[in-house]
Amino acid sequence: MSEASTKAEYYVGVDLGGTKILAGVFKHSLESLSTAKLSTKSQRGVEPVIERIARCVQDAVDEADLALKQVAGVGIGAPGAVDFASGTVIFAPNLEGWKDIPLKKALEKQLGVPVFVENDCNMAALGVYVAELKSKPRHMIGIFVGTGIGGGLILNGELFSGFCHTAGEIGHMVLEVSGPKCGCGNKGCLEALASRTAVFQQIKAGIKDGEKTLLTDLLGDGLGDLRSGDLRKAIRRGDKFVDRIVADAAEYIGIATANLVNIINPEVIVLGGGVIEALADEMIGVIVETAHDYAMPGSMKGVEIIASKLGDNAGITGGAVLARRETR
Amino acid sequence: MSEASTKAEYYVGVDLGGTKILAGVFKHSLESLSTAKLSTKSQRGVEPVIERIARCVQDAVDEADLALKQVAGVGIGAPGAVDFASGTVIFAPNLEGWKDIPLKKALEKQLGVPVFVENDCNMAALGVYVAELKSKPRHMIGIFVGTGIGGGLILNGELFSGFCHTAGEIGHMVLEVSGPKCGCGNKGCLEALASRTAVFQQIKAGIKDGEKTLLTDLLGDGLGDLRSGDLRKAIRRGDKFVDRIVADAAEYIGIATANLVNIINPEVIVLGGGVIEALADEMIGVIVETAHDYAMPGSMKGVEIIASKLGDNAGITGGAVLARRETR
Repeated sequence: MSEASTKAEYYVGVDLGGTKILAGVFKHSLESLSTAKLSTKSQRGVEPVIERIARCVQDAVDEADLALKQVAGVGIGAPGAVDFASGTVIFAPNLEGWKDIPLKKALEKQLGVPVFVENDCNMAALGVYVAELKSKPRHMIGIFVGTGIGGGLILNGELFSGFCHTAGEIGHMVLEVSGPKCGCGNKGCLEALASRTAVFQQIKAGIKDGEKTLLTDLLGDGLGDLRSGDLRKAIRRGDKFVDRIVADAAEYIGIATANLVNIINPEVIVLGGGVIEALADEMIGVIVETAHDYAMPGSMKGVEIIASKLGDNAGITGGAVLARRETR
Repeated sequence: MSEASTKAEYYVGVDLGGTKILAGVFKHSLESLSTAKLSTKSQRGVEPVIERIARCVQDAVDEADLALKQVAGVGIGAPGAVDFASGTVIFAPNLEGWKDIPLKKALEKQLGVPVFVENDCNMAALGVYVAELKSKPRHMIGIFVGTGIGGGLILNGELFSGFCHTAGEIGHMVLEVSGPKCGCGNKGCLEALASRTAVFQQIKAGIKDGEKTLLTDLLGDGLGDLRSGDLRKAIRRGDKFVDRIVADAAEYIGIATANLVNIINPEVIVLGGGVIEALADEMIGVIVETAHDYAMPGSMKGVEIIASKLGDNAGITGGAVLARRETR
């Protein structure tokens, strides 16, 4: 083995979610070498989840035919408020018992490699910004639409996380004060109007009310294992009911985009997450049109609204970017 | 006359509004020495307005027993999109014909003093940040409630104006998609729900519908010269109708505040403008309470929501701050 090959020149990104852990190994150029996936099993408690993260990192490293000593750093995104400086997860609502967890310290002990922790949406925004947009725009906002809706802000070329590390909670922007109830306790949040959870609820309520949809042909009356991709299939086969619900969600995302343009006036807005990945062709047109309708005159000049091509890998790519930046 | 007294050590701030021009002379310490006021008379055209700004500056300087050569710089806030670098007013919807007006160049020619141009709400936010908060918070958002509603963002200690200088258009954040029509053409913007214009419209509509209010005793049935201060008087004398309309407006401002906390997570939110100046005691409590109800858990930790004490002078103070900063 040559000396060069044992140099720590690789980076691992980890996306810690409520249901799964995704890890990926990247070259310095951000070229992806391998990924590994494990279920989170958050109900087992905090310690077991941290062990699973370490295992997932090791799996990805092994999959790339590398060893941990060749990894310069690990960047991990956690679903909640994170104190980057100390590497502590302050609070993660979808992970049982995650309150003030020193994730950086615990993982460094297990892996023997420098670990850096960020909020998951911040990390995904960073991944899109650096790997996809080559850090060119001065200001970028990432909107990630999945089970929930989150966001990440890049201002003046840097991640912006605010006073207590909670900036970018775009999903809880109220758009309709008298709208449907949100998981956060308020009404009419973007997440309650346009997340996968909201869209699925609207579809199920519609079916109960007697709406006809191809989804019941595809999946049975209970829609057991409904996924965003099924909505795409139904729409492409002419399902007007699903088409309308998805278009309504896109319209709300467009209004939220306009609000963000009015408040922050970024150069680029990037849409990502599972729902956008599955339904970009169906949603982006409506989002762009609505955003232009609702933004102030002049504020949309030169502003781009695009769908990310990184899909599910935005987070792990951002983790590698973070690790590369911090170990430079 | 000593040499020191003829040194250019004073700063002038100008707040250019749709109806009036306010100018103020400040010491280096930001102590106010004098102010002057002129009506804008925007209908006379762009050139006459620029001459009136110059005259207003000269009036304020003369009022302070100073001469223009003792002024190091003039900072002016214009009601619209401004390109700070070139000192151009890109577009000002409330000033007739103001599109791509090189205000810096034109005023420097008339005054012979360096001139710096910013958006009016950005400038007011800067004035509050430096003069009132002593530049202590890292991130601050100013919300100014008057005829319309505007905002200014201070992020990482600096004014943030976005990609095309339009950041901070907080008044056109949509809060109620199916809400009342806004001057901008959309529905349910904060400005259409909680500005002085919106509140006055609601009061007039209520009176038409037969609501009883002390305002008609105070001002006659037409409410000819209704001002924000009249609302305060009516509420303090027990007017339930006015109280409810003002409380509703405060609630919408509170929801907008929560949206901003969720998106940007600033350290301080400062409320200002004529409506807040007149009705702070009536509104701030509701705003703070509502903002706490609607903000995500954790994101309000340590965040302050306060009313500015600068009132109508926030803009001119910010102009002096700007001029001082740029001529340092």
